[in-house]
Amino acid sequence: MVNVQPVKPSQTRSERAREADHPTSQLAQFGADKPLRLDCGVDLAPFQIAYQTYGRLNADRSNAILICHALTGDQHVFNTHPVTGKPGWWETLVGPGRPVDTDRYFVICSNVVGGCLGSTGPSSTNPATGKPWGLDFPVITIPDMVRAQAMLIDHLGIRKLFAVVGGSMGGMQVLQWAVAYPERVFSALAVACSTRHSAQNIAFHELGRQAVMADPEWRGGRYFEHGTHPRRGLSVARMAAHITYLSSAALHRKFGRRLQDREMPTFSFDADFEVESYLRHQGSSFVERFDANSYLYLTRAMDYFDIAADHDGALAQAFRGSPTRFCVVSFTSDWLFPTSESRNIVHALNASGARVSFAEIETDKGHDAFLLDVPEFFAISHAFLQSAASAHGLNSAVS
Amino acid sequence: MVNVQPVKPSQTRSERAREADHPTSQLAQFGADKPLRLDCGVDLAPFQIAYQTYGRLNADRSNAILICHALTGDQHVFNTHPVTGKPGWWETLVGPGRPVDTDRYFVICSNVVGGCLGSTGPSSTNPATGKPWGLDFPVITIPDMVRAQAMLIDHLGIRKLFAVVGGSMGGMQVLQWAVAYPERVFSALAVACSTRHSAQNIAFHELGRQAVMADPEWRGGRYFEHGTHPRRGLSVARMAAHITYLSSAALHRKFGRRLQDREMPTFSFDADFEVESYLRHQGSSFVERFDANSYLYLTRAMDYFDIAADHDGALAQAFRGSPTRFCVVSFTSDWLFPTSESRNIVHALNASGARVSFAEIETDKGHDAFLLDVPEFFAISHAFLQSAASAHGLNSAVS
Repeated sequence: MVNVQPVKPSQTRSERAREADHPTSQLAQFGADKPLRLDCGVDLAPFQIAYQTYGRLNADRSNAILICHALTGDQHVFNTHPVTGKPGWWETLVGPGRPVDTDRYFVICSNVVGGCLGSTGPSSTNPATGKPWGLDFPVITIPDMVRAQAMLIDHLGIRKLFAVVGGSMGGMQVLQWAVAYPERVFSALAVACSTRHSAQNIAFHELGRQAVMADPEWRGGRYFEHGTHPRRGLSVARMAAHITYLSSAALHRKFGRRLQDREMPTFSFDADFEVESYLRHQGSSFVERFDANSYLYLTRAMDYFDIAADHDGALAQAFRGSPTRFCVVSFTSDWLFPTSESRNIVHALNASGARVSFAEIETDKGHDAFLLDVPEFFAISHAFLQSAASAHGLNSAVS
Repeated sequence: MVNVQPVKPSQTRSERAREADHPTSQLAQFGADKPLRLDCGVDLAPFQIAYQTYGRLNADRSNAILICHALTGDQHVFNTHPVTGKPGWWETLVGPGRPVDTDRYFVICSNVVGGCLGSTGPSSTNPATGKPWGLDFPVITIPDMVRAQAMLIDHLGIRKLFAVVGGSMGGMQVLQWAVAYPERVFSALAVACSTRHSAQNIAFHELGRQAVMADPEWRGGRYFEHGTHPRRGLSVARMAAHITYLSSAALHRKFGRRLQDREMPTFSFDADFEVESYLRHQGSSFVERFDANSYLYLTRAMDYFDIAADHDGALAQAFRGSPTRFCVVSFTSDWLFPTSESRNIVHALNASGARVSFAEIETDKGHDAFLLDVPEFFAISHAFLQSAASAHGLNSAVS
């Protein structure tokens, strides 16, 4: 496990910029001879991918698990976050003795291209200008992210991944891995995701983008140069997104109509209700760790994602003949990626003759359930990876 | 029917201010001797209520129907809107031969206190300063709105309303009328509403308020004096709210993932998807007709609404002994005010011994269904009002 020193929560502009170009992570750098071919038609070069690894690669390089992070996630799955000082974002699922067992597997997680934690993205320095890319950065897609990850896996000398695991936007990448590189993915665990973004999901993302771009401090995306920060717009975007990550029942259970540190309403626009304080906190803490332009690019990538559209509208066609073992997981109260979306994936996999198991987990925690302590989810993940490990000849501990 | 001349859609600051103080509607003005007692403890005086009427009051003043409007609605139910030039917002339900039959009933709709179409609100001139109230306007509640409406009904010489009808925030007012003035409400039609705002609903409203207040042009609510307009913030707030008014299925049916006037995605932040263009339009058209501070005040009023809390937590207690005939209507795909909320109302009314009928209407149109062409809704409204009219001795046409 890589040990990372936490930085104080509120970064300065230069600190944020440093994390973009010189991250507190391992780096794979690709020169002009190894461009990343983007769906928009641009060859991105040079570029870099920041990543973390945990555990040890075995002798025959057959125990690697790639974790794909969600929209506002990053590579810091199981170590202290260099910006926030908080524990890794998936320490519930990943670690010694956990379903993604770092005593047994070699676990890799990279920051997606377009992100802001060290992989090339809009806050990285554009070598052509010496300034941050901003909106000159080309629009990227989920397949682009996966293509970059494949280059990283090549760079690490791994031909085939034992498993690719992810939730939400991470789950989209899992599905894209299986479609793009079926021979390189032994098993795929896709959680709380879909093969295409719905109109409602696009609508919520567009709302968030408009909130960011409406902030005069966004400055057409050139806020680094102007010394500004679209803090208020990004905070509003985060608040909107955060509501979609929780179920109505979870919000009711956590907050109900309880007032914040008071007996009576103030009859003002203060945060009278606990849920208001909570949302304001979610918004303001997010802007300290995330880049506004990355938020635009990554939401856009999710909106564009549509596996079937890339296969003449036939989802089953995309997976035809797949040798990968799939496990698809949904949560009953997830209204952002409802179970109906997971069923679509499962139907397509069934129609394509792929091997798939499916679990819908009863919880009132909403979309965020994949990041929370949900024992049934861990049990299912553990059983799926155990069974896949046996089939893959990974019965013993790391060599 | 009052004929109103449409004004060009894009109002100037002075035009908006004029509509607030000197609306294109009838006015009931209350002087210092008739203050409006507000829940926050303030006596609001003087104040005015702008209203429209349709049809004729009969000789024994027994055929009056009060319509209560929703958050962004107004008194222009069945006439051309003075700002937008569009038809009245409830011409589907109200008019000759419609369920709320203007040939038979005397229909009244007033702008709520706190609104921006002529009833006293934050964009009205504060007589103490000669400037718009802005955030000096006292925070108002749903009971305050209803208290003001009761003063209007007194002013019109009507002791008892044949019916009170409304959806969403309008439905909240209907319920509050029945609780506050049970002897003055013969029948009550409460559509797509609840007796208290949920944590999720408060969260969406808080998001909208934060979007408005994040806009530097909001200027602490004093934008009229500064000659600014928090257009971008209010537009984002409207976009967020609008998503909640539609169901995911309705968004899918209307837009799916269709691109806007193009074959291929642009790989940019243009409105590639139709749903994005639609939302942007919803946002930008809203800011031409609605006041940003009113949006803050009216969302706040909805958040504070909690009938049970005002009756020792017992909802049934609030309705005990009610002589009113109730009809409660919900829509299957309304996730903002889901059927479970309507069932709570019905259970409380049953427990209190009140007379109530309940209909859940199957539709994929979401919360907005109450404003749209939903024949089952019209049939139920018609049947309920017919039956109530018989019981009220309103069998013949207007005298």
